[in-house]
Amino acid sequence: MSNYAGRTKTSVGTYVGQEGPVKTDNPIPTPKAEAPDVLRCASMELVVTDLEKSRQFYVDVLDLVVTEEDENTVYLRSMEEFIHHNLILRKGDTAAVAAFSYRVRAPEDLDKAVAFYTELGCRVERNKDGFVKGVGDSVRVEDPLGFPYEFFYEVDHVERLAWRYDLYSPGALVRLDHFNQVTPDVPRAARYMQDLGFRVTEDIQDENGTVYAAWMRRKPTVHDTAMTGGDGPRMHHVAFATHEKHNILAICDKLGSLRMSDAIERGPGRHGVSNAFYLYLRDPDGHRVEIYTQDYYTGDPDNPVVTWDVHDNQRRDWWGTPVVPSWYTDASLVLDLDGNVKEVVARTDDSEMAVTIGADGFSYTRAEEGEDSMPEYKKGEYKLGNQL
Amino acid sequence: MSNYAGRTKTSVGTYVGQEGPVKTDNPIPTPKAEAPDVLRCASMELVVTDLEKSRQFYVDVLDLVVTEEDENTVYLRSMEEFIHHNLILRKGDTAAVAAFSYRVRAPEDLDKAVAFYTELGCRVERNKDGFVKGVGDSVRVEDPLGFPYEFFYEVDHVERLAWRYDLYSPGALVRLDHFNQVTPDVPRAARYMQDLGFRVTEDIQDENGTVYAAWMRRKPTVHDTAMTGGDGPRMHHVAFATHEKHNILAICDKLGSLRMSDAIERGPGRHGVSNAFYLYLRDPDGHRVEIYTQDYYTGDPDNPVVTWDVHDNQRRDWWGTPVVPSWYTDASLVLDLDGNVKEVVARTDDSEMAVTIGADGFSYTRAEEGEDSMPEYKKGEYKLGNQL
Amino acid sequence: MSNYAGRTKTSVGTYVGQEGPVKTDNPIPTPKAEAPDVLRCASMELVVTDLEKSRQFYVDVLDLVVTEEDENTVYLRSMEEFIHHNLILRKGDTAAVAAFSYRVRAPEDLDKAVAFYTELGCRVERNKDGFVKGVGDSVRVEDPLGFPYEFFYEVDHVERLAWRYDLYSPGALVRLDHFNQVTPDVPRAARYMQDLGFRVTEDIQDENGTVYAAWMRRKPTVHDTAMTGGDGPRMHHVAFATHEKHNILAICDKLGSLRMSDAIERGPGRHGVSNAFYLYLRDPDGHRVEIYTQDYYTGDPDNPVVTWDVHDNQRRDWWGTPVVPSWYTDASLVLDLDGNVKEVVARTDDSEMAVTIGADGFSYTRAEEGEDSMPEYKKGEYKLGNQL
Amino acid sequence: MSNYAGRTKTSVGTYVGQEGPVKTDNPIPTPKAEAPDVLRCASMELVVTDLEKSRQFYVDVLDLVVTEEDENTVYLRSMEEFIHHNLILRKGDTAAVAAFSYRVRAPEDLDKAVAFYTELGCRVERNKDGFVKGVGDSVRVEDPLGFPYEFFYEVDHVERLAWRYDLYSPGALVRLDHFNQVTPDVPRAARYMQDLGFRVTEDIQDENGTVYAAWMRRKPTVHDTAMTGGDGPRMHHVAFATHEKHNILAICDKLGSLRMSDAIERGPGRHGVSNAFYLYLRDPDGHRVEIYTQDYYTGDPDNPVVTWDVHDNQRRDWWGTPVVPSWYTDASLVLDLDGNVKEVVARTDDSEMAVTIGADGFSYTRAEEGEDSMPEYKKGEYKLGNQL
Repeated sequence: MSNYAGRTKTSVGTYVGQEGPVKTDNPIPTPKAEAPDVLRCASMELVVTDLEKSRQFYVDVLDLVVTEEDENTVYLRSMEEFIHHNLILRKGDTAAVAAFSYRVRAPEDLDKAVAFYTELGCRVERNKDGFVKGVGDSVRVEDPLGFPYEFFYEVDHVERLAWRYDLYSPGALVRLDHFNQVTPDVPRAARYMQDLGFRVTEDIQDENGTVYAAWMRRKPTVHDTAMTGGDGPRMHHVAFATHEKHNILAICDKLGSLRMSDAIERGPGRHGVSNAFYLYLRDPDGHRVEIYTQDYYTGDPDNPVVTWDVHDNQRRDWWGTPVVPSWYTDASLVLDLDGNVKEVVARTDDSEMAVTIGADGFSYTRAEEGEDSMPEYKKGEYKLGNQL
Repeated sequence: MSNYAGRTKTSVGTYVGQEGPVKTDNPIPTPKAEAPDVLRCASMELVVTDLEKSRQFYVDVLDLVVTEEDENTVYLRSMEEFIHHNLILRKGDTAAVAAFSYRVRAPEDLDKAVAFYTELGCRVERNKDGFVKGVGDSVRVEDPLGFPYEFFYEVDHVERLAWRYDLYSPGALVRLDHFNQVTPDVPRAARYMQDLGFRVTEDIQDENGTVYAAWMRRKPTVHDTAMTGGDGPRMHHVAFATHEKHNILAICDKLGSLRMSDAIERGPGRHGVSNAFYLYLRDPDGHRVEIYTQDYYTGDPDNPVVTWDVHDNQRRDWWGTPVVPSWYTDASLVLDLDGNVKEVVARTDDSEMAVTIGADGFSYTRAEEGEDSMPEYKKGEYKLGNQL
Repeated sequence: MSNYAGRTKTSVGTYVGQEGPVKTDNPIPTPKAEAPDVLRCASMELVVTDLEKSRQFYVDVLDLVVTEEDENTVYLRSMEEFIHHNLILRKGDTAAVAAFSYRVRAPEDLDKAVAFYTELGCRVERNKDGFVKGVGDSVRVEDPLGFPYEFFYEVDHVERLAWRYDLYSPGALVRLDHFNQVTPDVPRAARYMQDLGFRVTEDIQDENGTVYAAWMRRKPTVHDTAMTGGDGPRMHHVAFATHEKHNILAICDKLGSLRMSDAIERGPGRHGVSNAFYLYLRDPDGHRVEIYTQDYYTGDPDNPVVTWDVHDNQRRDWWGTPVVPSWYTDASLVLDLDGNVKEVVARTDDSEMAVTIGADGFSYTRAEEGEDSMPEYKKGEYKLGNQL
Repeated sequence: MSNYAGRTKTSVGTYVGQEGPVKTDNPIPTPKAEAPDVLRCASMELVVTDLEKSRQFYVDVLDLVVTEEDENTVYLRSMEEFIHHNLILRKGDTAAVAAFSYRVRAPEDLDKAVAFYTELGCRVERNKDGFVKGVGDSVRVEDPLGFPYEFFYEVDHVERLAWRYDLYSPGALVRLDHFNQVTPDVPRAARYMQDLGFRVTEDIQDENGTVYAAWMRRKPTVHDTAMTGGDGPRMHHVAFATHEKHNILAICDKLGSLRMSDAIERGPGRHGVSNAFYLYLRDPDGHRVEIYTQDYYTGDPDNPVVTWDVHDNQRRDWWGTPVVPSWYTDASLVLDLDGNVKEVVARTDDSEMAVTIGADGFSYTRAEEGEDSMPEYKKGEYKLGNQL
C-alpha cells in the first residue's frame, strides 16, 4: 500500500505492485511477540434486537443452516461449512457486533494471541470453555482499533452439507467469505493487520496517497477482512459466498416475492475491487450482509497488489452503478468485552463519498476524459451536491 | 385494461383479469378493413450519426451478426434469426428511428395493411422492391400515433446461427424481442393496437384508472411492443433477448472492461412487469437498447392480463431498485416517411415519474405500509423532490 | 419433410428447406372437415401404479405445484402456468398414458375436433363436464395412430406463480413444453399431424429418405409433439421446461443427494435437434420425463425446416454423448377410451438404433471422415455389435 | 487414509474422519530433510507431436492466453493468472509430460527441494536460469514414483487478465486447478506426498482397505494433485477451472459446432469426490484435460477427510453416469530428465474398473439395495462383463 510510484499501470487502468510495509504517520507499534497464525475469518457474533425477526431473515429468507439454537441464541452455518457456526444471532437490547471471530491453525496460537495483544496493551480475555457454544478454548480481545476480535482453534465438527443438494435453495450460501470493518485511519489499521500476519491484496487511494480502503487476507482469497475508512470502530458488513452469480440474483428475486425488497441496499453488481459479483442486504437491525461470489486466488507471496484510483468510477462497481450514500455512511456498532458499545471516533482523512460524489469531488469512467465521462443520465446520483 | 374493478388480487399484490376493449375518451376509429396478420416485431431501422461508432457498439461490443453492409448502412441480425436482419444502422444527420418493422403472415397481409391504414387516413407507401436490402414488397405508414410502421412478408433467408457456438460471445443476443414506444395517451394507443390485432398482456395503472403503460403482443411473449406514456411519438427502446441471465451480466462486465460503463443506463435487474431479467444501454446516439431474458408464454386467448399499481415500487424493478429519471424522460425521435423528424406532442395525463418519485408522488414496497416501506437508504433516489 | 434434394447444407452439416406435404405411401386420408385450432400441448394424464411414490417424485423431487388432489388423483402444474394443471397422476393397475391433452383456441374448436375425427372414423367421446377436474367441455378421441388425444378450451384459471420466487426450487419447472410419441410409420404420422394443423420444424432422415423422427409444433417452439419411429402407439416422454441450464443440473444434483440417481436415464446434454439443453428421467413407473430448456422461435410460416442425417452422431446429442439403448427401446403404453391398453404394432422401417450403433450401422462426428471420426474411447458404447 | 474404522458415516453415505499417516506396506522412507513449502500446482509441460494442431486446441478452442511463443514452444496461461504460464506446449516426437511444475513459497525452498530429493536418492537437476522461459532458478527431479516434478519460485509476472471481460470467451478458463497422476500403489504414493507436505482431502477405498485413488492439496482446494491407481507413472489429466458451470457447457457446445465433439471423453457431470462440476477432454495427442469448477475450501488442518466406497456408483459421478473405460485405462506417458519415456509399471492391487463394472465387480446407487439399485437402462454400460 503506497501511492502509485513504482507501480505498473494495467490495461484496465489499475496499478499493480508489490506489497510493502504500509506507510503511516501514526503506527501501532509492532509487537515483538509472534502473531497467532490465523487461518480464516470463521464467524461473527451479532447482537440482534428481535431474535425471531432476525432468525426469519437469516434462516427463512437466506436459508442458512441452524446448527443449534435456544431462546436467546441461534447458531448458523453455510452449506459447505464443517465447523459449528459461521454466524451467531444473540438477542440483546442494542444491535451491535459482539465478536469478529477468526480460526487459528493450532491450539498454541491462542497463547500467541494472548501475548501479542497483551504486548499491545489491549484488554485480553481467555475462556477455556469458549465464549459461545460449539467452540472451546478461546481468546477475546479489544484490539488496538477498538474491535472485539476472537481467536479459537477448538470447535465442534458438524456435517458439511456440500453434497446435500436436496437442501440447497436457489440462493444457497456456501461459505463465510469475509468481514469488513470501518475505522478512521486506514493505513494505521492496515499496518497493524500486517503485523497480525494479514496480506494486502487491493486498496483504494488518491493521487496524494490518501488511503480510503484496504483489503487483507489470510486464506488465499481477496480478503478475510477489509478496512474501510470512516467513523469507527464499526462493522461495515459480513459476507457470505454463493457458488454462482444466479444464486445472488435468486436472493433478490425471493426478496421481491416476499415484499422485502427494501432489504436490498446496493447491487447486485460486479465489484471493481476483488472482481467479485456482489449484493448488499440490510438485516432487520440494519446489519449489512454482503452476498459475494468469484474473486480470485491470492495465495502467492508476491501476489500483485492492485491499487484503484478513488476517482475511478468503476472501482466500487465495475459497471459504474452509483454507490448509495447509506453504504458509505451506515455501519453497525461494536461492543467491548463487557458488552458495552464502543465509542465511535470520527475519520479525519478525506471521505470517499466526499471526494467522489460530494460537492467538490469527482469521478470518471475514462481517466483521460475526466468527469465528462460520467453518464449524463445518472448525474443526479453521481453528484450529490448540497444534498447531504 | 381497466381499473381494478372485477380483477383478482394475486398473492404478490398485482391484479389479474381478462382483456376487454380499452376505455378511452379519445379513440382512433376502428377501421372496417381487416387488420393485417402481424407475426412479430422483426426489425428496427435506426438513423445514427456516426456509423463507425455505432457499428462498433452493435458489432464489436454487442456481437450482433453483420448480414450485409455498405458505407451508409449496416444490416444486423441476432444468433437465432433466419431473416435478413433485425436491426439496420443507417447513417444520417439526426439520430432517430426510421421504421418499426413487423413481419406479417402472408403477402396478402400487405394489401390489408394498405386498406387498414388508408381507412385510418394515414399516409401509406408501398414499395414492391422493399425500402431496404433483404426485404421485398413492403408497406410503410405514418400510423395514427405518428410512428413509422413497416410491414413485410418477403425477406431473404440467411443461415440461422443458433448452432454456431463457436461464434457465440458471453453476452450473445439471440432474438429481437420487442419495441417500446412513447406516446402521450396510452389508452388511445392501446385501443388502436388492439384494432391492429395486438393483445394486452400487462399494464400499469393508478387507482383513478390513469394508464401509465401497456404491454401488447402478437407472438406469445409478453410483448412485441409496449406503449409508455410520455411526450411522443418517440422510441423508448428496442430489445434483444439472451438465453440466460449471466449473458446479460457478461455484457455489463465487458462494457466495464472497455471503459464504456457509461453506456449502462439502468439495470441489470428483474422487471416486475413481464418478470424478465433486463438491462438498459444507451448507444452512441443515445438510442436505448434493452437486453432482456425470460418472460413467459402468453399465447392463450384468455391469458390473464396483469395490472400493476403505479405506486408499487416493484412494478418496474422487482428488487425495488430506483428507476433513473433519464429512463422516464429520454427517448429517440422518429421520422416521417420523408425522413423528417416527427413533432413531439406533450403528455397531458399524469407522468409516472411525478406520481411515484416526484415531490407529491409516492411509492411503496408493501401496500399496507405505504411510503413508510420505502428503503430509508435509497430515499435520496426515491424522492426527487424539487430536484427535477 | 423429404430427402435432401432441394435443400441447403448449413455450415454445421444439417440441411434446411421449406416444409412441404410429407411423402408417404400409406397416408391417412385428409378430412374435409376443418381441423380444430390447437393452441398448445397442455397436459398429460398419466396412470401410475403407486400414487404416493409418484407424487413424491413429481412433487417432492421435481417440485411441481399441486393444484388439487384426492386419494386417487393429483393435479399438478408448472410455475408459470395459469390453467388448472399440466400433469395428472391417476392411480391405476397398469402404468400408461390416458390422455395427451391439447388446448384449443375457442369452444367452437371442440365441434371441429368432433367432426374431424368422426370423418377419420375414429372413436370420439365428448363430455360437457370434462373428463377430469378443472377442465370443462372436452373431446377425447382414439386417433388414427392409436393415441388417446384430448381437446379442451374451458379450464379453471389458477394463479400463475411466475413471480413467487419464494416457492422456486433450484430446479424449478416453469412450463409444459412438449410430448413425444412413438409410432411405427413416421411419415404417415407426420402427414396426419399436418392435417391437424401442426408444422414440421425438424426431422431425422437417411440418404434413402427413411424418416426416423419428426418434430411438430403449434405454438412457436420446436414442438408441441414429436413422432419417434418405433413400436407404437407408445408415449416416449413428456417434457417440462426450466428457465436456465443450471436448473437442469440442479435436478441431477438433487437426485444424487436423494440417492435416486438411477432415475437419470440420459443426459444432461445439448440436443442437436432443437438445440435445447436436456435431461431424461424415468419416474417410478418408468414413464420418461424430459427436462428441457432453450430451443428457438419457429413461428414464421416459412420457418426453415432442419433435416439431420441419421448417421450424424451430433443429431441427438450435440456433444456426441452416446444415446443409451433403453432410450430407443423403452416407452409407455397408452390407453384407449375404455382404459384398456392399446396393442403395440411393430415398426417395419429401419430402426435408428440399428442403423447408427447396431452391428451394421454407423455414425460419424465429421461426415467426410465417416465412422473413423467416432471417438475411440467411446467405441464400446457406440458399437453395440451383437450385444443387443 | 484408512479403512472405515473410526469414521463417521454422513447423511449421503460417505465416511468422514481425520487424516492420519497413510498405511502402506511398502513406504518410501521419510526424508529427514525438511520438505520444500509448496504453494500450488503451477504449470505442466506437455510434449505434443503437432504443435500447430495443439495450439489450435488450447488457444483457438479452449481460449487459453498465449504469453509467449516460438516455433517449438507455446506458453499459455489462464485468465486470472499473473505468472508467466500454466501450460507449456513443446514440440516433440513422442506425446508425453515433461514436467509437473509446482511453485514454492520462497527461493530457499529450492535448496530444500534439492536436499529432500537427494536424500530420497532421486535424480535432481537445478538450473539457475530455469528450464523454460519465464521461470528462473528451478529444480527438476525424477521423483520416487517416477514423475518429473519441477519446483520454482522466480517467475516473470504478467498482467492478470481477470478484469479483461472483453477477452473472455463463453468457456473461459480462469485458473490451473490440479494435476492427476497414475501410479500403481496409491498408499505408497500418498504417504510420500504427505512427506512432501500435502494433505489428503478425499479418497476411494473398499471394505478391505484397498485404496483406489487419493486427492491431496497444498492450496486449500480439494487438490493440487491426485493419485489414481493404475499402471504408472503416467499423467491422468491436468485440470483448469472455470467460474461457473455454464462455462463448461459452453466448451461442449463449441466443440460440437467445430465438429470436434469426439474430443469429449467423459462428462460434463458432477463429481462425487470433490463435489466439483467437471468435463474431460482429450487433446490432439490424447492428453487428457479436465475442466472443473466449484469444489470447496479445505484449508483447516482438521478438514474432514472424505472416504468414498469404491462400489458407490455416485463416487465418480454424483448423477450415476457411467465412467467410460478409456478414462480408467488411458493416460499420458511421462519423461525422465533426459527426455526419455519412463517405463510403465503395472498396478498389482485391484483395479477400480474391474471391481466396479468388470465381470465380477459391482456398484450400487443405494448401498442397502446393492447392485439391484443400478439403473436397468444403463446395464450395458455398467456391466462390461467379458467385453474388456
